Amino acid sequence: MLTNVEHIGIAVRDIAASNDLFTKLLNVAPYKSETIESENVTTSFFQVNQTKIELLEATSSESAIARFLEKKGEGIHHVAFEVDDIKAEMERLKNEGFTLVNEVPKRGADNKLVCFLHPKGTNGVLIELCQEIKE
Amino acid sequence: MLTNVEHIGIAVRDIAASNDLFTKLLNVAPYKSETIESENVTTSFFQVNQTKIELLEATSSESAIARFLEKKGEGIHHVAFEVDDIKAEMERLKNEGFTLVNEVPKRGADNKLVCFLHPKGTNGVLIELCQEIKE
Repeated sequence: MLTNVEHIGIAVRDIAASNDLFTKLLNVAPYKSETIESENVTTSFFQVNQTKIELLEATSSESAIARFLEKKGEGIHHVAFEVDDIKAEMERLKNEGFTLVNEVPKRGADNKLVCFLHPKGTNGVLIELCQEIKE
Repeated sequence: MLTNVEHIGIAVRDIAASNDLFTKLLNVAPYKSETIESENVTTSFFQVNQTKIELLEATSSESAIARFLEKKGEGIHHVAFEVDDIKAEMERLKNEGFTLVNEVPKRGADNKLVCFLHPKGTNGVLIELCQEIKE
């Protein structure tokens, strides 16, 4: 079950400048910054009620964010929904005809297991499912 | 103050087909459909916790949604933040250097007063401020 809009991911070229911009916009400072080496991105997070705004800057031209910026420019990159059981939800959505980008949950930012749905099957919206890792 | 991600607006070509798609994705049916004549759009709404997913189909080639679809294709069109005092927030953001698309709040879907911020000043993200109209 998709229980919450966990975060909205926004691709930016200069995360320091965008941190300032979103601090002004949201009137709150980012509570966390994190580099995910495996994805070649640096992220920062702002909390608005039960949803986070995640800014994403590419740290390499190999990054999916670098390719997105080149193709589409800055803007919303993905929407992430919190799920209570990511494997069950991946199975359900696959059976409903959605295409999973990764067939096995992978480790994402912010201590989460994540899976993306291909935007070709979701009206052009890149959708992430995410579930917090409980150690 | 921006208190919540009130909704995420997604531009679609065929709202009937997309209603089916998002019903499968979210495992919940839309709770409302509404045509806004002044904006030349038909909308439908899905509730996920405290955030809505709003699908938008153009009813005329004059609609901003029709222009968006032509330029960018289907996908996320805007993010709306709930505010407690739209006029005060518009004033604050104008003073912070953001560009308001409309200088006076206008009536939007779902019984709201709304104002948009120009995406050139917000990393390519079209941002809506919205406040529920209390009659």
